[in-house]
Order: sequence, then C-alpha cells, then structure tokens
Amino acid sequence: MPDDRDPMALALSEARAAAGRGEVPVGAVLIGPDGQVLARAGNQVEADADPTAHAEMLVIREAARRLGTPRLVDCSLVVTLEPCAMCAQAIALARLKRLVFGAYDPKGGGVEHGARVFERATCHHRPEVIGGVREREAGDLLRGFFRDCRVDPSP
Amino acid sequence: MPDDRDPMALALSEARAAAGRGEVPVGAVLIGPDGQVLARAGNQVEADADPTAHAEMLVIREAARRLGTPRLVDCSLVVTLEPCAMCAQAIALARLKRLVFGAYDPKGGGVEHGARVFERATCHHRPEVIGGVREREAGDLLRGFFRDCRVDPSP
Repeated sequence: MPDDRDPMALALSEARAAAGRGEVPVGAVLIGPDGQVLARAGNQVEADADPTAHAEMLVIREAARRLGTPRLVDCSLVVTLEPCAMCAQAIALARLKRLVFGAYDPKGGGVEHGARVFERATCHHRPEVIGGVREREAGDLLRGFFRDCRVDPSP
Repeated sequence: MPDDRDPMALALSEARAAAGRGEVPVGAVLIGPDGQVLARAGNQVEADADPTAHAEMLVIREAARRLGTPRLVDCSLVVTLEPCAMCAQAIALARLKRLVFGAYDPKGGGVEHGARVFERATCHHRPEVIGGVREREAGDLLRGFFRDCRVDPSP
C-alpha cells in the first residue's frame, strides 16, 4: 500500500494501475497548499477516447474543480514521467508552485527536452522543477510496458 | 449569422460569445474528414474553473468523444488565435491533419513563437499549418477585450 504522505509512491501506484488498463503507465498526484492530496490519476487516453487525458491534465482539472478556481497557487504536481509540452504548459497556466517528476523523457518530454516550455519568453509562470525522483522505478514501469507491447501488440 | 461552410466565421462567432462571458475571446471549430463540424467552442477557463479549458482543447475533446477515438485522423482544427504550447501539443497528440489559425500570438503562441512545438524532435506528428487567416478580425477582438479590461478590470 502506498503511503499517503509519499506522493511519488501514490503516483507510481496510479501508473501501475494505468498499465493494468492497457494505458501508457504514467501516474500523477496534485498536492494542495497544506499538503493534502487534491487529486490522483493515471493516464486515461484510451479508456476516455481523449488525446488530452494525460495523468497530469486529469489531476490539474480535478484539483481546479475541487478548489473552484483555474489558478492552483501554492499547489504541487508529482508525476512519474517528465511532462510533455501540453502538460508543461498546463502546469504554467495553472500557476502551480512546484513540479516533481520521476523519469526523464528524451523522446517526448517538454520540460528538460524538446519544447522546454518553461524556458521560453512565452511562458508567463515557471514552477520550481525537481526531476529524477525515483527515476528508476518510473522508467522500469514504462520500459516493461513497451517491451510487452512489442511482444504482443494486441489488446 | 456565420455560414456553417466557413469554419473561421464560426470560430470568430465563438470568440465573440466568449468575450460576452468575460472569457479571453478565442474560438475554435473542429472539422471532420468529410467537412462536417464535429465541435465548436469558445474559451471556458473562468466559467469551468479549468486552466486547460482553451477553445482548442474543448473541441478536440468533444470531437474525440463523438468519434470514439483519441486519434482525429484527417480532421482539421480552425481557431482564431495561434495555439499555445498546450494546445499545439494536444493537436499533435490527436494526430490532426491541419491547423488553421487567425492572429499570430508573439506573447503566448507555441506554434510560430516560443516553444515552437511542431519543430521539435519530441513532436511525433506535424499537422499542416496555415496561419494569419482573417488575422485582423481575430486580433481586433482580442485587442478590444484587453483594452476594456484595462479600463474596467471588475467583472
């Protein structure tokens, strides 16, 4: 059982659950100003038939709904994989204070790779970024998932 | 009345309706493979308390829901303003065939400015891009909205 006081453990748990549903195994947790978990989710792109249903987007939307505001000031997002450009820009738009992520994603990341969203003059809010937290666990989950996909691509 | 056969006119109409609700006036339309309008929306960030509720995201999600798939192959998105990095990456993730936009956005755009999402090696699908369509009308709407905000910032 993941400890509620360890957001990355919760996020990894959500990632494993996503893998079990046949989704790319990425999980995320949104932490409120006083440390409570406002939202937790895994990828739901296939289940929801929604190309924007990355774990980060789901927890941002759910936390904003719960707080009744699109501005998640003093909140933190914890996610198992470096966010893509869509999720990175959503983090900036939501004014999140901190982003913590697990594995780096040289192929699709938009924070430390590619679009490097937070480094652009067009980005009007930059969160504190802490990458590489429990990197190996998050990366192993993804590598295992894609290895299995190659062996048996059928659902 | 905007003509259903003129998607940018529909998008401009959605942008004007958004302004009337106190939202940043951006409107979007999603066109299916046979030219039918699958979804239309204006910004709903404030009304929905959702930082991701840009017009582009709303029409992508609605069209995917209607078609029952996260991959909007052979579909086009028409929007009054150059998309930000979030919306640009969502367009790539949705595998849209074509993006048509109105005004360029040097301050917040992610297609021709800033993150330039489609130009990165981390972007695995690049739509055809046509910018500057009815640019002045889309830009005038935005300039008018922000001018009014400065005069009277109260809702």
